[in-house]
Amino acid sequence: MRKTNEVEQLIYLFSKLPGLGQRSSRRIVLHLLQEKEVRLKNLMDGLALAASKIQICEICRNIDSHNICHICTTSDRNKSIIAIVETVAELWAIERSGNFNGKYHVLGGALSASMKKSPDSLRLPQLLERCMNHGVTELIIATNATLEGQTTAYFITEYFRNYNLKISRLANGIPIGGELDYLDEGTLSLAIALRQPFD
Amino acid sequence: MRKTNEVEQLIYLFSKLPGLGQRSSRRIVLHLLQEKEVRLKNLMDGLALAASKIQICEICRNIDSHNICHICTTSDRNKSIIAIVETVAELWAIERSGNFNGKYHVLGGALSASMKKSPDSLRLPQLLERCMNHGVTELIIATNATLEGQTTAYFITEYFRNYNLKISRLANGIPIGGELDYLDEGTLSLAIALRQPFD
Ligand SMILES: [Zn+2]
Ligand SMILES: [Zn+2]
Repeated sequence: MRKTNEVEQLIYLFSKLPGLGQRSSRRIVLHLLQEKEVRLKNLMDGLALAASKIQICEICRNIDSHNICHICTTSDRNKSIIAIVETVAELWAIERSGNFNGKYHVLGGALSASMKKSPDSLRLPQLLERCMNHGVTELIIATNATLEGQTTAYFITEYFRNYNLKISRLANGIPIGGELDYLDEGTLSLAIALRQPFD
Repeated sequence: MRKTNEVEQLIYLFSKLPGLGQRSSRRIVLHLLQEKEVRLKNLMDGLALAASKIQICEICRNIDSHNICHICTTSDRNKSIIAIVETVAELWAIERSGNFNGKYHVLGGALSASMKKSPDSLRLPQLLERCMNHGVTELIIATNATLEGQTTAYFITEYFRNYNLKISRLANGIPIGGELDYLDEGTLSLAIALRQPFD
């Protein structure tokens, strides 16, 4: 099979995206090339716009078109409570559940056994500073119910143990091994409502 | 759930690609935004290159970086035999099978019951011209084994009935309802080797 370098390269780039393999990438690339002037152009424009506009929030690491995100900026949300999530995907999942009105701290991933993700990258000193100086009274640890997520939750609990903060985790009800982004909204909503204190 | 317009728009664009839904698109967009300077940029560059370089072959409608594709140009292939395929995906599938050394005619899709795809779009007069003036003696109709693919095969056979051409179709062995792009290479290779004359 000989394709042009440009097509091969584009298929390769798509195949590196999460959930995509060779075949699905081939179909996507052909779909885009079939109506190049419309489909390829629209996607390029969308990517260019995102590349130029999207920033990472300096406070919570949500993504937004401002360097302080809309969740951190708004006065409509309860700033005394912070949900700690692994990535923006889980932030979105919690927002979809519609049952949380506090602020967030995005870790940027869980601690991994191979330590590709180091404790430093969790930015816990910055979170502590938010807690001390901005009236935060409660942390909800909303890491995934995976081994890495639970390890991370334990690490965070230890880190904040000696401060006067209520630390809770999502209620049982989340299946073991489950990932938040794959849960139905109802289960996740319930897990927030029934959240339990740590230890 | 409130995301920025740029992120929403990008998720929407990905969700319109074949095989992708809301969740898979969200994960892809987050993945791209996570290392914007590398991942997003590489994909944009790949798309831009494809947009500027890729053309549709004037003869067979394969895609290539030249307006006459490498398969039409080369003298290494048997120009007396043409495989008729629905899209470039099936052309690639046949090339992967490694058992065909002729040329192609890409229909651009099968005739559909709703006639969103009209007989005119199949460019059969152009194919006839190729047959008459360039020494073509055999057509292999390699449409998918779907209702629409079979309808299209029948239509093409009727169109070429009164010309002195050997018309064959891929051998039985392709499962009914199956699509070429999903077959393993061995089955497709066998189907080409055992191709049968029409009627
Ligand atoms: Zn923020
Ligand atoms: Zn060609």
